[in-house]
Amino acid sequence: MTKAIYRVLTFSVLACAVCLAQTDDSQPAVTNVRAAAYPRVHGDLRVTFQFKAPNAQKVQLQPGGDDNGLGKGPIDMTRGADGTWTVTIPPAVPGFHYYWFLVDGATVNDPGSETFFGYGHETSGVDVPEKGADFYAAADVPHGDVRIHWYYAKTTAAWRRALVYTPPDYDRNPRARYPVLYLQHGAGEDERGWTSQGRANFILDNLIAARKAKPMIVVMEQGYATKPGPSPAAAPGAANAAFEQVVIGDLIPMIDATYRTIADRSHRAMAGLSMGGAQALQIALTHLDKFAWIGSFSAPLRANSDLKTSYNGAFADAAAFSKKVHLLWFGAGTAEERMHRPAMEMHEALEKAGIRNVFYESPGTSHEWQTWRRDLHEFAPLLFQ
Amino acid sequence: MTKAIYRVLTFSVLACAVCLAQTDDSQPAVTNVRAAAYPRVHGDLRVTFQFKAPNAQKVQLQPGGDDNGLGKGPIDMTRGADGTWTVTIPPAVPGFHYYWFLVDGATVNDPGSETFFGYGHETSGVDVPEKGADFYAAADVPHGDVRIHWYYAKTTAAWRRALVYTPPDYDRNPRARYPVLYLQHGAGEDERGWTSQGRANFILDNLIAARKAKPMIVVMEQGYATKPGPSPAAAPGAANAAFEQVVIGDLIPMIDATYRTIADRSHRAMAGLSMGGAQALQIALTHLDKFAWIGSFSAPLRANSDLKTSYNGAFADAAAFSKKVHLLWFGAGTAEERMHRPAMEMHEALEKAGIRNVFYESPGTSHEWQTWRRDLHEFAPLLFQ
Repeated sequence: MTKAIYRVLTFSVLACAVCLAQTDDSQPAVTNVRAAAYPRVHGDLRVTFQFKAPNAQKVQLQPGGDDNGLGKGPIDMTRGADGTWTVTIPPAVPGFHYYWFLVDGATVNDPGSETFFGYGHETSGVDVPEKGADFYAAADVPHGDVRIHWYYAKTTAAWRRALVYTPPDYDRNPRARYPVLYLQHGAGEDERGWTSQGRANFILDNLIAARKAKPMIVVMEQGYATKPGPSPAAAPGAANAAFEQVVIGDLIPMIDATYRTIADRSHRAMAGLSMGGAQALQIALTHLDKFAWIGSFSAPLRANSDLKTSYNGAFADAAAFSKKVHLLWFGAGTAEERMHRPAMEMHEALEKAGIRNVFYESPGTSHEWQTWRRDLHEFAPLLFQ
Repeated sequence: MTKAIYRVLTFSVLACAVCLAQTDDSQPAVTNVRAAAYPRVHGDLRVTFQFKAPNAQKVQLQPGGDDNGLGKGPIDMTRGADGTWTVTIPPAVPGFHYYWFLVDGATVNDPGSETFFGYGHETSGVDVPEKGADFYAAADVPHGDVRIHWYYAKTTAAWRRALVYTPPDYDRNPRARYPVLYLQHGAGEDERGWTSQGRANFILDNLIAARKAKPMIVVMEQGYATKPGPSPAAAPGAANAAFEQVVIGDLIPMIDATYRTIADRSHRAMAGLSMGGAQALQIALTHLDKFAWIGSFSAPLRANSDLKTSYNGAFADAAAFSKKVHLLWFGAGTAEERMHRPAMEMHEALEKAGIRNVFYESPGTSHEWQTWRRDLHEFAPLLFQ
């Protein structure tokens, strides 16, 4: 849809303020801060944004990313008499969408929104509900705790913060031990993404309550690591290598020493989205002594991977691989232009090579959190069975 | 210090860019997002802020609150050739300070800063280090977890989020039980304030490691509650009454049922800052069957309290009160214009009436988090002894 059409819609809505007041079924977004009236989501999933800037010459809405479910930006907003700028966009794709405002070109968050760490900084976000999808709701079921856990990593010689989901019965059942899923965020995000944007804790709560997934611990860490000393800019890939060392040398031993885990490969999974999916593939496939369950959401294997040699030859013996790896799982949204087809082709190439793997398509969603929420909801029930 | 002097300083700094580059001892603030170079804190506690807004006519730094340790705002920033606006302010008071930018009058957060919930929305913040004060550092000591815990409150007929600090040995010692401190934030803040801004978890970690405080659970909830049904605007005080009911009827029973607490009044404390201090006084003093330890940071008793009748007559019998209440503790910063003298006078009036109480002055700090960090550091060691 073109910007011109957005503008026509916007003006129509403003011109029709009286009729709107009578028929308005909009609600503040669930991602708003307490008592903020805007952004508002309408029953038909149109979204109205507001920002007060009496002295600005131009205010625009900028959805985050190229294929954001809010539409392509920047989208012009219209100035009201009191200096409040407004736009109502056409029905959005359900799910969580990053956005910000451009105020005379400057990037500005919406004070009405909670902030979410994306694009390397705190960013506004709006959650557009999906009709009938209650799998990530804070439902009336037992809830696990999400623990903010600080630990010292020798690899980086620094304190790091991990988020650790413990399932609802963890504290009531002090002798039980649990399998562990290591779950990574995407580039520009951090360890808070999977719970704040992804609602991973509620997804697990609901699956566990319905007995669709085994109770498990979920560990979410920041996918960045820098060794002390000279800048890693000098050594390409050093930052990724350092993160791999953190996971293998620091994080897993700390988790197994701190929480009641079942500390073997059959009870340890790794998954992630986008950059985190690539990290999960790299780390799990090259440490099959540590992991038996692997998930990559919106991140296929490295381009032109030679199945005989890539990932330290993990795929070289297909029969041995399929016996050793209990699950290799890929997901992609059908609206992900750069991910969907490569992921599907890779799935087929792996199948042809005798490498058993699962490919899940999220209908109508792009490189965004609704794809990854659905991925987790499909992936988690298959783990540790 | 006047705005004119700020401007002179700013221009001097910019004019001296070359000499600065040679002698600059500034560091990115610890409150910055990963890799953000600004704001920067200098060795002498001057702070340099930057914001990119090429098309703005005017950009200003606005410290939060009237007596913020960054100075009085708004403080004009100076445009550089590339549209980056800069200001260096004179040495700031140590501690955490809220701030934002005014871009042609519009309120805008700093993309270089993490955000902190204050003033009812996400707000930028800068932590200026205090020389020699390591009591709130993430030190090389055992760390407790901060748990994000969701629970259903009958009072509000809604799910609520509490943060629960469990001390470092909580998971290692599954039969131990612990006393509980209920610790409330100020107006406009929420349950995240005490850990994100206040670093309460690190303060407790350090005190417990040094054996200066008893290991304890700390519960941090949002001090807002609305009953279902007609808006509380119709009934003055309804919101506060609802929060009191949440604490007594929902929160305490849930905490005692979920965590390994010692569930009696001698092992239960309540404290808070500003609005949260007033709530702690109201709730604890009128429920002395539930609490034996009370702290109010930057919040004296209600003005003109009649000691015979106020707080349901809690103070009417001074001897009985002092026997029953193991600690009544008040704190205020000496730079808090509206709090320090009233708090001191109230302390003296209570002493005169035979009501034993402690009054602590935080030197040089105002109605800000450095005062409350110090309050907690002084208060917590006295609890449960």
